[in-house]
Amino acid sequence: MYGKGELKFIGVVESAGENEAKVHIFPEFCDALKGIDGFSHMIILYWIHLRDNEKERSVLQVIPRGRANGVKVGVFACRSPSRPNPIGLCVVKLMKVEDCRLTVKGLDAFEGSPIIDVKPYIQRRDAVPNAYTPEWLSH
Amino acid sequence: MYGKGELKFIGVVESAGENEAKVHIFPEFCDALKGIDGFSHMIILYWIHLRDNEKERSVLQVIPRGRANGVKVGVFACRSPSRPNPIGLCVVKLMKVEDCRLTVKGLDAFEGSPIIDVKPYIQRRDAVPNAYTPEWLSH
Repeated sequence: MYGKGELKFIGVVESAGENEAKVHIFPEFCDALKGIDGFSHMIILYWIHLRDNEKERSVLQVIPRGRANGVKVGVFACRSPSRPNPIGLCVVKLMKVEDCRLTVKGLDAFEGSPIIDVKPYIQRRDAVPNAYTPEWLSH
Repeated sequence: MYGKGELKFIGVVESAGENEAKVHIFPEFCDALKGIDGFSHMIILYWIHLRDNEKERSVLQVIPRGRANGVKVGVFACRSPSRPNPIGLCVVKLMKVEDCRLTVKGLDAFEGSPIIDVKPYIQRRDAVPNAYTPEWLSH
């Protein structure tokens, strides 16, 4: 073993949906949202709780969904929900902020997934318009 | 309390530097790197170990670095290293992959920071060229 860290769940996905999802930030952490309404997009980190077990967390290679050639790739080379730490990451569009609730577009988490962090999307740091990906990803 | 998750450290920042940093992925997780050499950019999630204490993790608002007006914003509205879960996120350029070691450009972690996840940067999901940010961020 190489060391561990402890995450606090700071919120939960209250309702899921690619077009509209609602995220509830627990009251204890609500003050940390001050100022997010100035951003168009956020990065949501969530805990893929349905994969939080030893079997799923020991998966190191998968055949990515939709790849017909059947060649395995490492979970660090794809967005597989089975991975050593079941952390999901989505860039979402911020539609509405009301008290401790965010309405967002583009979150692919399930209802009930704990939220572990919310970060503002900052174009000069996070947007790489000319990034390339391997050919297998575009099939 | 609202529930917790347990992170495994899967690697470590071996040498730091904005222009060149080296990340060592522990041998146990090395197979998960298969295929990453096809990507130009990666998203590195790391554990800001120097802020992993109750005091730093209870900070909810900060005066962002370089903001002269002195108005506090929530830690979910900035990239403050003091936050409920000390997770750092950097989009990096992948320079080299050698066995279990990645050489990257753009990682602002300190030497010794544990790595908690590595994800490929996928332009259609992660690049938002027209994202906007509040005025205070550009000062």
